Amino acid sequence: MSYSHTIETLMVELGKLPGIGARTAERLTFHLLKASDDEALSLASAIHDLKTLIHPCKVCFNPTEGELCSICGDESRDAGAICVVEQPKDLLSIESSGAYNGRYHVLMGAIAPLDGVEAEDLTIAQLVDRVHAGGVQEVILATNPTVTGDSTSLYISSLLEKIPGVRVTRLARGLPAGGQIEYASKTILSDAIKDRKNL
Amino acid sequence: MSYSHTIETLMVELGKLPGIGARTAERLTFHLLKASDDEALSLASAIHDLKTLIHPCKVCFNPTEGELCSICGDESRDAGAICVVEQPKDLLSIESSGAYNGRYHVLMGAIAPLDGVEAEDLTIAQLVDRVHAGGVQEVILATNPTVTGDSTSLYISSLLEKIPGVRVTRLARGLPAGGQIEYASKTILSDAIKDRKNL
Repeated sequence: MSYSHTIETLMVELGKLPGIGARTAERLTFHLLKASDDEALSLASAIHDLKTLIHPCKVCFNPTEGELCSICGDESRDAGAICVVEQPKDLLSIESSGAYNGRYHVLMGAIAPLDGVEAEDLTIAQLVDRVHAGGVQEVILATNPTVTGDSTSLYISSLLEKIPGVRVTRLARGLPAGGQIEYASKTILSDAIKDRKNL
Repeated sequence: MSYSHTIETLMVELGKLPGIGARTAERLTFHLLKASDDEALSLASAIHDLKTLIHPCKVCFNPTEGELCSICGDESRDAGAICVVEQPKDLLSIESSGAYNGRYHVLMGAIAPLDGVEAEDLTIAQLVDRVHAGGVQEVILATNPTVTGDSTSLYISSLLEKIPGVRVTRLARGLPAGGQIEYASKTILSDAIKDRKNL
């Protein structure tokens, strides 16, 4: 005796999600079984809509419903600067800082050969094409300050440095505002000392 | 700037699930965005199927695809015993013990007035009807050994005790096999002492 096929199928599907184990999948399945039809079916159709309505912006690969995302379609934003991020989430974080008014380019990951992610799996070629097409004065590499993020940035910068008139920068490293020196890691402190600035 | 409408909708829907907060909902949404169409859409259709194909068994309320669940439809099972459980999950647990060969009745919860669950919200009336219809010699109350489970059992037993020829029992309480007396709670020990048996 086990759960009926339909229930079992949903448990298996939910269990494929990251961070959702067999027990949680079971709990969620029974929650959905008890939930109103409305609630459960709007979740199903939200997932369906995500995969059918959303696709990458044809310029920057930020997920969007239209041809161009709202940033690429916004003429008031500086087209001379491209901020390169790993994930759409990173784009949102930078946007919410309010410190940047240029365009973006979403790589959809970082180069990680051990996880089977090569440069060709990302949107690096499209970024190089964008920069080659002209009109870009600066490319800001805003990948994560991790081994994979840093090596991705290094690789991209090696491709872009051959293009004349384009400045390639990366986000500053140092102490996180609001943090405490006591709790900063060795790497953070060594970054902060290396990149110290005149007061 | 925020996520596009479709992405936002899915985050809200996922965030309604129990134990899934805003951050997890965001993470799952981006996972689904990156996942293959196949993977995401089969999750959507599994949820859809759950709400359209699955309904309670018309006898015992165990969720099933057919009219009767596989247990109620199984003539080889003892129709003279009904084991009353709170949730379909509990039924599965008892089934996997292999110690029971009767029928079931799923209450779909326990009486918990503080959470807005009254006796009328459960399938208690249908259970009483089943027992009244005859052919039942024993009703085993297998609600959880908790305050709500126990009071639900007490309430049900008060309704059933008027029906002649029906024995109402509840699952034994005592030390959990494999456990250690040192770590058993006061309630477990007092149950174990109260219900001690001759060797």
